[in-house]
Amino acid sequence: MTEIRYDVLGLGNSLVDIIARVDDDFLIRSQVRKGGMTLIDEPRAESLYGSMGPATIISGGSAANTIVGVASFGLAAAYIGKVKADTLGRAFIHDIRAMGVGFDTVPAAEGPATGRCYILVTPDGERSMSTYLGASQNLAPADVEEALVRQSAIVYLEGYMWDPPAAKEAFVKASKIAHAAGRRVALTLSDPFCVDRYRAEFLALMRSRTVDIVFANQHELKSLYQTADLETALEAVRSDAALGIVTRSAEGCLVVTREETCAVAAFPVEHVADTTGAGDLFAAGFLAGLARGADAATCARLGALAAAEVIQHLGARPQVGLAHLAADNGLAL
Amino acid sequence: MTEIRYDVLGLGNSLVDIIARVDDDFLIRSQVRKGGMTLIDEPRAESLYGSMGPATIISGGSAANTIVGVASFGLAAAYIGKVKADTLGRAFIHDIRAMGVGFDTVPAAEGPATGRCYILVTPDGERSMSTYLGASQNLAPADVEEALVRQSAIVYLEGYMWDPPAAKEAFVKASKIAHAAGRRVALTLSDPFCVDRYRAEFLALMRSRTVDIVFANQHELKSLYQTADLETALEAVRSDAALGIVTRSAEGCLVVTREETCAVAAFPVEHVADTTGAGDLFAAGFLAGLARGADAATCARLGALAAAEVIQHLGARPQVGLAHLAADNGLAL
Repeated sequence: MTEIRYDVLGLGNSLVDIIARVDDDFLIRSQVRKGGMTLIDEPRAESLYGSMGPATIISGGSAANTIVGVASFGLAAAYIGKVKADTLGRAFIHDIRAMGVGFDTVPAAEGPATGRCYILVTPDGERSMSTYLGASQNLAPADVEEALVRQSAIVYLEGYMWDPPAAKEAFVKASKIAHAAGRRVALTLSDPFCVDRYRAEFLALMRSRTVDIVFANQHELKSLYQTADLETALEAVRSDAALGIVTRSAEGCLVVTREETCAVAAFPVEHVADTTGAGDLFAAGFLAGLARGADAATCARLGALAAAEVIQHLGARPQVGLAHLAADNGLAL
Repeated sequence: MTEIRYDVLGLGNSLVDIIARVDDDFLIRSQVRKGGMTLIDEPRAESLYGSMGPATIISGGSAANTIVGVASFGLAAAYIGKVKADTLGRAFIHDIRAMGVGFDTVPAAEGPATGRCYILVTPDGERSMSTYLGASQNLAPADVEEALVRQSAIVYLEGYMWDPPAAKEAFVKASKIAHAAGRRVALTLSDPFCVDRYRAEFLALMRSRTVDIVFANQHELKSLYQTADLETALEAVRSDAALGIVTRSAEGCLVVTREETCAVAAFPVEHVADTTGAGDLFAAGFLAGLARGADAATCARLGALAAAEVIQHLGARPQVGLAHLAADNGLAL
């Protein structure tokens, strides 16, 4: 059996975040759907950028944020994703490697520019995202190195990968290799509208055991099962996934297994500056705990801690070492 | 006489800041002088970037930060400076225009990339800067549009411009046009080591009345007059400049005129996150007050307010509207 080299391997759309603070009127004027993620083409990206205020540029990408969080907890983490060899792509590569993440996907020399997510943060801290996928949509099965997947205890995949067709194939390839090697595969449902686009496929992934662990917020879960009732959705996910983790913002989360539902509180936060990355960093903490064999409640506490850190500042990458933060909160891994 | 269109026009090295948090050991290992600004070439920039942690990218440049601050106070502001037409250059242009600043300097199509300032922020909030001037050093007298200078009530120049020779000529040209039109010219001494490099020239600029108003922190002023005694330096600047403004971090500032020295306290700050831009934003507030005809104490209070805002977060650009902040603090302009 292959030895484990990485605790968690992530695959996702590799994006650089272009973040600006705006008021709610700006979202309406610019026809940006509040709180969601909308795919945009390059002309729309240019026009949105042209109308938005001064921006901060920070590496992003949902699974990439999660993997950086896992590394920040002190675990061994790796990532697969596609950028172009341009200025923003080099920044993405620098930032993820600087966190100690193993990242060797060859950047594209040609084709569309590195993908960008234009994130508009309103005064309530909510983020509304418009994503130009760019080079990230060219992630292909060939980029999924078999040995790397086999060496990773948990493979973590983002639902957003269902948008670009080649990335979807890379996703399925990674899952197959992982299961053949006896590894666990986790999926985040990413966004309620993403769920709406790929409901049948996500359910098929779960029911065929292509994924074992499912991360979702309550809106995504309700969207998946097309119900307004959380209890109904929880019962459904209980039978469709070995492990379901359902986040509910300030109300904490629910960990759903075959046998039970475990509720864990969120960490109290004085001021929410920017919710970008809350779900990504929750997953980071949970996965870090899972990889180290922690019980469900501890995994959820670690997730809540990481999420609390990231929503207190701009950007979806942690600004402090999460291993230290965990130790300071009695959650040393 | 030309009508006034802009309250303040700034000229400076146009840089994008690449900001990372590091510990003090990193500065020592990387031979970065703590608290200062060191000029570096491109290979050094690449090697420093390669060794530093994940970074946040935010537009910077000393005078550009000041001008953005002036605009944020609700005044009419313009800027002259050189970037290249590359990704970071376009970000610089976007960010300054998004603040309503008049900025029409033609970006370079060829030559070195847009200038970058690698800013390492230590846990005490101090910033240590390594600057690759890049395209900014190609700012030339031809970029100084005469009409624009004549239309600006105050022309604000940064001492850092003394580093690239062509920028220095642009500086002198702007000053001549401004004075011929009856405008005021302000200079910031920028950095103690910058003063050390150009002491004789800075003194000549002041004594020849090429500049009327001088901004300096106490270290820069002491460096200018090669004295360890602040009182001695204050007496010297009193005779060399029509108006001298000397900042002393948390101890507030001193406004020095021919007749008197006026001390104004700093705004108390709970936690200093990053001192980058403190001097730049102090100058913004002071200049905004000056342009509106406020008295020296009010100008200094406005400066202190803007500086307090910028040191509480990462990056040298204000994150809230300074006009509102001023109004909330009884300093409406």
